[in-house]
Amino acid sequence: MWIRWREEAWQTFVRDIEIGYVDRDIVRFIMDIFEKCRNIFTISSCSGRITLVDAPYPWVRKESTVVFKKHEAVSLDEVLNVLKQRCAYRLWIIASGPIMHFVANSLDVAQRLLNIARSCGFKHSGIISLRRDGIVVEVISGTWTSTLLKEGDTVLLESDKLAIVVKLFNDILLEGKSRLKALHEAILKSSL
Amino acid sequence: MWIRWREEAWQTFVRDIEIGYVDRDIVRFIMDIFEKCRNIFTISSCSGRITLVDAPYPWVRKESTVVFKKHEAVSLDEVLNVLKQRCAYRLWIIASGPIMHFVANSLDVAQRLLNIARSCGFKHSGIISLRRDGIVVEVISGTWTSTLLKEGDTVLLESDKLAIVVKLFNDILLEGKSRLKALHEAILKSSL
Repeated sequence: MWIRWREEAWQTFVRDIEIGYVDRDIVRFIMDIFEKCRNIFTISSCSGRITLVDAPYPWVRKESTVVFKKHEAVSLDEVLNVLKQRCAYRLWIIASGPIMHFVANSLDVAQRLLNIARSCGFKHSGIISLRRDGIVVEVISGTWTSTLLKEGDTVLLESDKLAIVVKLFNDILLEGKSRLKALHEAILKSSL
Repeated sequence: MWIRWREEAWQTFVRDIEIGYVDRDIVRFIMDIFEKCRNIFTISSCSGRITLVDAPYPWVRKESTVVFKKHEAVSLDEVLNVLKQRCAYRLWIIASGPIMHFVANSLDVAQRLLNIARSCGFKHSGIISLRRDGIVVEVISGTWTSTLLKEGDTVLLESDKLAIVVKLFNDILLEGKSRLKALHEAILKSSL
Protein backbone atom coordinates (compact mmCIF):
# COMPACT_ATOMS: atom_id res chain seq x y z
CA MET A 1 0.00 0.00 0.00
CA TRP A 2 2.90 2.32 0.83
CA ILE A 3 4.44 1.58 -2.57
CA ARG A 4 1.19 2.37 -4.36
CA TRP A 5 0.94 5.69 -2.51
CA ARG A 6 4.55 6.43 -3.43
CA GLU A 7 3.78 5.77 -7.09
CA GLU A 8 0.81 8.14 -7.01
CA ALA A 9 2.89 10.83 -5.28
CA TRP A 10 5.54 10.51 -7.97
CA GLN A 11 2.95 10.93 -10.75
CA THR A 12 1.55 14.02 -9.04
CA PHE A 13 5.01 15.48 -8.63
CA VAL A 14 5.85 14.94 -12.32
CA ARG A 15 2.56 16.51 -13.37
CA ASP A 16 3.11 19.50 -11.06
CA ILE A 17 6.53 20.10 -12.61
CA GLU A 18 4.99 20.06 -16.09
CA ILE A 19 2.29 22.53 -15.07
CA GLY A 20 4.90 24.68 -13.31
CA TYR A 21 3.44 24.36 -9.79
CA VAL A 22 6.61 23.20 -8.03
CA ASP A 23 8.95 25.89 -6.77
CA ARG A 24 12.31 25.35 -8.38
CA ASP A 25 14.39 25.62 -5.18
CA ILE A 26 13.06 22.24 -4.07
CA VAL A 27 12.77 20.17 -7.28
CA ARG A 28 16.25 18.63 -7.11
CA PHE A 29 15.70 17.67 -3.47
CA ILE A 30 12.43 15.86 -4.19
CA MET A 31 13.93 14.15 -7.24
CA ASP A 32 16.75 12.85 -5.02
CA ILE A 33 14.30 11.52 -2.46
CA PHE A 34 12.36 9.56 -5.06
CA GLU A 35 15.50 8.30 -6.74
CA LYS A 36 17.67 7.50 -3.71
CA CYS A 37 15.50 6.93 -0.63
CA ARG A 38 13.80 3.57 -0.21
CA ASN A 39 11.85 4.31 2.96
CA ILE A 40 10.45 7.82 2.52
CA PHE A 41 8.84 9.98 -0.13
CA THR A 42 7.26 13.43 -0.17
CA ILE A 43 3.65 14.39 -0.83
CA SER A 44 3.86 18.17 -0.58
CA SER A 45 6.58 20.68 -0.09
CA CYS A 46 7.55 24.32 -0.26
CA SER A 47 11.08 25.74 -0.14
CA GLY A 48 9.95 28.85 1.72
CA ARG A 49 8.40 32.05 0.42
CA ILE A 50 7.45 35.61 1.10
CA THR A 51 3.77 36.42 0.85
CA LEU A 52 1.69 39.55 1.24
CA VAL A 53 -1.65 38.54 2.65
CA ASP A 54 -4.85 40.49 3.19
CA ALA A 55 -6.39 38.79 6.22
CA PRO A 56 -7.74 39.51 9.70
CA TYR A 57 -4.96 37.33 11.14
CA PRO A 58 -1.93 35.82 9.40
CA TRP A 59 -3.00 32.21 10.03
CA VAL A 60 -6.57 32.64 8.71
CA ARG A 61 -7.27 30.84 5.42
CA LYS A 62 -10.96 31.41 4.82
CA GLU A 63 -11.27 35.18 4.56
CA SER A 64 -7.70 35.76 3.44
CA THR A 65 -6.29 36.71 0.04
CA VAL A 66 -2.70 36.09 -0.95
CA VAL A 67 -2.02 39.32 -2.83
CA PHE A 68 1.60 38.54 -3.66
CA LYS A 69 3.76 35.41 -3.45
CA LYS A 70 7.40 34.76 -4.29
CA HIS A 71 9.81 31.94 -3.47
CA GLU A 72 12.78 34.31 -3.73
CA ALA A 73 13.80 37.63 -2.21
CA VAL A 74 11.40 40.52 -2.82
CA SER A 75 12.17 44.17 -3.58
CA LEU A 76 10.91 47.23 -1.74
CA ASP A 77 9.13 48.34 -4.92
CA GLU A 78 7.20 45.09 -5.15
CA VAL A 79 5.94 45.62 -1.61
CA LEU A 80 5.17 49.32 -2.14
CA ASN A 81 3.08 48.41 -5.19
CA VAL A 82 0.93 46.10 -3.13
CA LEU A 83 0.64 48.66 -0.32
CA LYS A 84 -1.01 51.08 -2.77
CA GLN A 85 -3.88 48.67 -3.37
CA ARG A 86 -6.98 48.71 -1.19
CA CYS A 87 -7.07 46.26 1.66
CA ALA A 88 -10.17 44.50 3.03
CA TYR A 89 -8.80 43.56 6.47
CA ARG A 90 -5.11 43.90 7.26
CA LEU A 91 -2.04 43.52 5.11
CA TRP A 92 0.64 41.21 6.49
CA ILE A 93 4.07 40.42 5.15
CA ILE A 94 4.92 36.82 5.95
CA ALA A 95 8.23 35.00 5.55
CA SER A 96 7.59 31.26 5.69
CA GLY A 97 10.34 28.70 6.04
CA PRO A 98 10.42 25.44 4.13
CA ILE A 99 7.75 22.84 4.85
CA MET A 100 7.70 19.26 3.64
CA HIS A 101 5.36 16.34 4.17
CA PHE A 102 7.08 12.99 4.06
CA VAL A 103 5.52 9.54 4.12
CA ALA A 104 7.65 6.98 5.95
CA ASN A 105 7.12 3.23 5.64
CA SER A 106 7.59 2.55 9.37
CA LEU A 107 7.54 4.27 12.75
CA ASP A 108 11.26 3.65 13.12
CA VAL A 109 11.97 5.46 9.85
CA ALA A 110 9.67 8.30 10.89
CA GLN A 111 11.56 8.69 14.16
CA ARG A 112 14.93 8.71 12.39
CA LEU A 113 13.66 11.28 9.90
CA LEU A 114 12.48 13.46 12.81
CA ASN A 115 15.91 13.29 14.44
CA ILE A 116 17.64 14.30 11.20
CA ALA A 117 15.14 17.11 10.59
CA ARG A 118 15.60 18.53 14.10
CA SER A 119 19.39 18.47 13.79
CA CYS A 120 19.07 20.58 10.62
CA GLY A 121 16.97 23.24 12.36
CA PHE A 122 13.50 21.90 11.60
CA LYS A 123 12.51 22.04 15.23
CA HIS A 124 8.75 22.00 14.86
CA SER A 125 8.59 18.71 13.00
CA GLY A 126 6.29 15.90 14.05
CA ILE A 127 4.25 12.91 13.00
CA ILE A 128 0.88 14.23 11.95
CA SER A 129 -0.85 11.08 10.79
CA LEU A 130 -0.53 7.34 11.41
CA ARG A 131 -2.05 5.50 8.47
CA ARG A 132 -1.90 1.86 7.48
CA ASP A 133 -0.28 2.83 4.20
CA GLY A 134 2.32 5.16 5.75
CA ILE A 135 3.36 7.51 8.54
CA VAL A 136 3.02 11.18 7.57
CA VAL A 137 5.81 13.36 8.98
CA GLU A 138 5.60 17.14 8.77
CA VAL A 139 9.05 18.70 8.60
CA ILE A 140 8.91 22.40 9.33
CA SER A 141 11.36 25.05 10.47
CA GLY A 142 10.58 27.75 12.97
CA THR A 143 11.82 30.43 10.57
CA TRP A 144 8.36 31.92 10.21
CA THR A 145 7.79 35.60 10.81
CA SER A 146 5.05 38.08 10.07
CA THR A 147 4.72 41.80 10.38
CA LEU A 148 1.61 43.93 10.11
CA LEU A 149 1.95 46.49 7.29
CA LYS A 150 -1.54 47.92 7.05
CA GLU A 151 -4.65 48.07 9.24
CA GLY A 152 -7.55 48.74 6.86
CA ASP A 153 -6.25 51.67 4.83
CA THR A 154 -3.76 52.85 7.45
CA VAL A 155 -0.18 52.14 6.40
CA LEU A 156 1.86 51.48 9.54
CA LEU A 157 5.42 52.01 8.35
CA GLU A 158 7.14 54.84 6.50
CA SER A 159 9.16 53.81 3.43
CA ASP A 160 12.56 53.88 5.16
CA LYS A 161 11.22 51.68 7.97
CA LEU A 162 9.55 49.40 5.45
CA ALA A 163 12.92 48.98 3.71
CA ILE A 164 14.35 47.64 6.99
CA VAL A 165 11.49 45.12 7.24
CA VAL A 166 11.83 43.97 3.62
CA LYS A 167 15.57 43.42 4.00
CA LEU A 168 15.02 41.47 7.21
CA PHE A 169 12.31 39.28 5.69
CA ASN A 170 14.58 38.46 2.75
CA ASP A 171 17.28 37.40 5.24
CA ILE A 172 14.75 35.18 7.01
CA LEU A 173 13.74 33.57 3.72
CA LEU A 174 17.37 32.79 2.93
CA GLU A 175 17.95 31.33 6.39
CA GLY A 176 15.12 28.89 5.72
CA LYS A 177 16.59 27.97 2.32
CA SER A 178 19.97 27.26 3.87
CA ARG A 179 18.36 24.91 6.41
CA LEU A 180 16.64 23.16 3.52
CA LYS A 181 20.01 22.66 1.87
CA ALA A 182 21.36 21.16 5.10
CA LEU A 183 18.37 18.81 5.28
CA HIS A 184 18.88 17.77 1.67
CA GLU A 185 22.49 16.85 2.36
CA ALA A 186 21.70 15.09 5.65
CA ILE A 187 18.98 12.95 4.08
CA LEU A 188 21.25 11.93 1.20
CA LYS A 189 23.93 10.90 3.71
CA SER A 190 21.42 8.87 5.75
CA SER A 191 20.16 5.43 4.83
CA LEU A 192 16.54 6.55 4.70
CA MET B 1 6.83 2.90 33.06
CA TRP B 2 4.18 5.31 31.78
CA ILE B 3 2.58 5.41 35.24
CA ARG B 4 5.93 6.20 36.86
CA TRP B 5 6.48 9.07 34.41
CA ARG B 6 2.96 10.31 35.13
CA GLU B 7 3.70 10.32 38.86
CA GLU B 8 6.90 12.33 38.34
CA ALA B 9 5.07 14.81 36.09
CA TRP B 10 2.43 15.29 38.77
CA GLN B 11 5.09 15.98 41.44
CA THR B 12 6.77 18.52 39.16
CA PHE B 13 3.44 20.22 38.46
CA VAL B 14 2.59 20.49 42.15
CA ARG B 15 6.04 21.90 42.91
CA ASP B 16 5.74 24.43 40.05
CA ILE B 17 2.42 25.65 41.44
CA GLU B 18 3.98 26.15 44.86
CA ILE B 19 6.89 28.09 43.38
CA GLY B 20 4.50 30.10 41.22
CA TYR B 21 5.87 28.93 37.86
CA VAL B 22 2.59 27.78 36.33
CA ASP B 23 0.49 30.39 34.55
CA ARG B 24 -2.88 30.50 36.20
CA ASP B 25 -4.98 30.32 33.01
CA ILE B 26 -3.99 26.67 32.59
CA VAL B 27 -3.84 25.26 36.14
CA ARG B 28 -7.48 24.07 36.26
CA PHE B 29 -7.04 22.35 32.86
CA ILE B 30 -3.95 20.43 33.97
CA MET B 31 -5.58 19.49 37.28
CA ASP B 32 -8.53 18.06 35.35
CA ILE B 33 -6.24 16.03 33.11
CA PHE B 34 -4.46 14.45 36.06
CA GLU B 35 -7.71 13.84 37.93
CA LYS B 36 -9.97 12.68 35.11
CA CYS B 37 -7.91 11.30 32.22
CA ARG B 38 -6.56 7.77 32.47
CA ASN B 39 -4.56 7.68 29.23
CA ILE B 40 -2.83 11.07 28.98
CA PHE B 41 -1.00 13.54 31.19
CA THR B 42 0.92 16.78 30.55
CA ILE B 43 4.61 17.51 31.05
CA SER B 44 4.76 21.16 30.05
CA SER B 45 2.29 23.78 29.05
CA CYS B 46 1.66 27.46 28.48
CA SER B 47 -1.73 29.14 28.07
CA GLY B 48 -0.34 31.70 25.65
CA ARG B 49 1.49 34.95 26.28
CA ILE B 50 2.77 38.21 24.92
CA THR B 51 6.52 38.72 25.05
CA LEU B 52 8.87 41.51 24.06
CA VAL B 53 12.09 39.93 22.90
CA ASP B 54 15.45 41.44 22.02
CA ALA B 55 16.80 39.04 19.39
CA PRO B 56 18.18 38.94 15.85
CA TYR B 57 15.19 36.77 14.85
CA PRO B 58 12.07 35.94 16.83
CA TRP B 59 12.79 32.18 16.94
CA VAL B 60 16.39 32.53 18.19
CA ARG B 61 16.95 31.38 21.79
CA LYS B 62 20.67 31.70 22.30
CA GLU B 63 21.35 35.40 21.77
CA SER B 64 17.86 36.50 22.74
CA THR B 65 16.57 38.23 25.86
CA VAL B 66 12.95 38.16 26.93
CA VAL B 67 12.59 41.74 28.13
CA PHE B 68 8.92 41.48 29.04
CA LYS B 69 6.48 38.59 29.46
CA LYS B 70 2.81 38.44 30.38
CA HIS B 71 0.15 35.73 30.12
CA GLU B 72 -2.58 38.38 29.89
CA ALA B 73 -3.32 41.42 27.72
CA VAL B 74 -0.66 44.15 27.78
CA SER B 75 -1.10 47.92 27.81
CA LEU B 76 0.40 50.43 25.39
CA ASP B 77 2.31 51.98 28.30
CA GLU B 78 3.95 48.68 29.18
CA VAL B 79 5.22 48.37 25.62
CA LEU B 80 6.32 52.02 25.44
CA ASN B 81 8.35 51.54 28.62
CA VAL B 82 10.29 48.68 27.07
CA LEU B 83 10.77 50.61 23.81
CA LYS B 84 12.64 53.30 25.76
CA GLN B 85 15.29 50.81 26.83
CA ARG B 86 18.36 50.12 24.73
CA CYS B 87 18.19 47.17 22.39
CA ALA B 88 21.10 44.89 21.42
CA TYR B 89 19.61 43.41 18.22
CA ARG B 90 15.97 43.95 17.37
CA LEU B 91 12.90 44.27 19.52
CA TRP B 92 10.01 42.00 18.59
CA ILE B 93 6.54 41.80 20.03
CA ILE B 94 5.36 38.21 19.96
CA ALA B 95 1.91 36.80 20.68
CA SER B 96 2.20 33.06 21.29
CA GLY B 97 -0.79 30.77 21.44
CA PRO B 98 -1.15 27.96 23.95
CA ILE B 99 1.25 25.02 23.76
CA MET B 100 0.98 21.76 25.65
CA HIS B 101 3.03 18.59 25.74
CA PHE B 102 1.00 15.50 26.49
CA VAL B 103 2.22 11.98 27.11
CA ALA B 104 -0.16 9.31 25.81
CA ASN B 105 0.00 5.66 26.86
CA SER B 106 -0.57 4.32 23.31
CA LEU B 107 -0.39 5.33 19.66
CA ASP B 108 -4.14 5.01 19.38
CA VAL B 109 -4.65 7.47 22.25
CA ALA B 110 -2.10 9.82 20.66
CA GLN B 111 -3.98 9.76 17.35
CA ARG B 112 -7.32 10.43 19.09
CA LEU B 113 -5.78 13.31 21.03
CA LEU B 114 -4.44 14.75 17.77
CA ASN B 115 -7.87 14.61 16.18
CA ILE B 116 -9.47 16.37 19.14
CA ALA B 117 -6.70 19.00 19.20
CA ARG B 118 -7.08 19.75 15.48
CA SER B 119 -10.84 20.09 15.77
CA CYS B 120 -10.30 22.75 18.47
CA GLY B 121 -7.98 24.81 16.25
CA PHE B 122 -4.63 23.30 17.30
CA LYS B 123 -3.68 22.64 13.70
CA HIS B 124 0.08 22.32 14.11
CA SER B 125 -0.05 19.47 16.57
CA GLY B 126 1.95 16.31 16.10
CA ILE B 127 3.70 13.39 17.75
CA ILE B 128 7.21 14.56 18.55
CA SER B 129 8.63 11.54 20.32
CA LEU B 130 7.97 7.81 20.45
CA ARG B 131 9.32 6.43 23.68
CA ARG B 132 8.82 3.11 25.38
CA ASP B 133 7.35 4.84 28.39
CA GLY B 134 4.98 7.06 26.40
CA ILE B 135 4.12 8.92 23.19
CA VAL B 136 4.82 12.65 23.42
CA VAL B 137 2.24 14.78 21.61
CA GLU B 138 2.80 18.48 21.07
CA VAL B 139 -0.48 20.37 20.90
CA ILE B 140 0.00 23.83 19.46
CA SER B 141 -2.19 26.40 17.81
CA GLY B 142 -1.18 28.49 14.83
CA THR B 143 -2.13 31.68 16.64
CA TRP B 144 1.44 32.90 16.74
CA THR B 145 2.35 36.32 15.43
CA SER B 146 5.30 38.63 15.67
CA THR B 147 5.96 42.18 14.63
CA LEU B 148 9.25 44.02 14.51
CA LEU B 149 9.17 47.10 16.76
CA LYS B 150 12.80 48.23 16.76
CA GLU B 151 15.88 47.65 14.62
CA GLY B 152 18.86 48.51 16.82
CA ASP B 153 17.82 51.89 18.23
CA THR B 154 15.43 52.76 15.40
CA VAL B 155 11.81 52.60 16.54
CA LEU B 156 9.70 51.52 13.58
CA LEU B 157 6.22 52.61 14.61
CA GLU B 158 4.79 55.88 15.85
CA SER B 159 2.71 55.67 19.03
CA ASP B 160 -0.69 55.72 17.29
CA LYS B 161 0.41 52.89 14.99
CA LEU B 162 1.89 51.00 17.92
CA ALA B 163 -1.47 51.25 19.68
CA ILE B 164 -3.04 49.42 16.71
CA VAL B 165 -0.44 46.66 17.00
CA VAL B 166 -0.85 46.28 20.77
CA LYS B 167 -4.62 46.02 20.47
CA LEU B 168 -4.28 43.42 17.72
CA PHE B 169 -1.76 41.33 19.67
CA ASN B 170 -4.09 41.32 22.69
CA ASP B 171 -6.89 40.04 20.43
CA ILE B 172 -4.59 37.29 19.17
CA LEU B 173 -3.70 36.28 22.72
CA LEU B 174 -7.38 36.01 23.62
CA GLU B 175 -8.12 33.96 20.49
CA GLY B 176 -5.51 31.44 21.67
CA LYS B 177 -7.02 31.35 25.16
CA SER B 178 -10.48 30.67 23.75
CA ARG B 179 -9.12 27.73 21.74
CA LEU B 180 -7.55 26.42 24.95
CA LYS B 181 -10.95 26.60 26.62
CA ALA B 182 -12.46 24.61 23.74
CA LEU B 183 -9.69 22.01 24.06
CA HIS B 184 -10.26 21.75 27.80
CA GLU B 185 -13.96 21.05 27.27
CA ALA B 186 -13.38 18.62 24.40
CA ILE B 187 -10.86 16.58 26.39
CA LEU B 188 -13.19 16.38 29.40
CA LYS B 189 -15.97 15.12 27.11
CA SER B 190 -13.68 12.51 25.53
CA SER B 191 -12.75 9.19 27.12
CA LEU B 192 -9.04 9.98 27.04
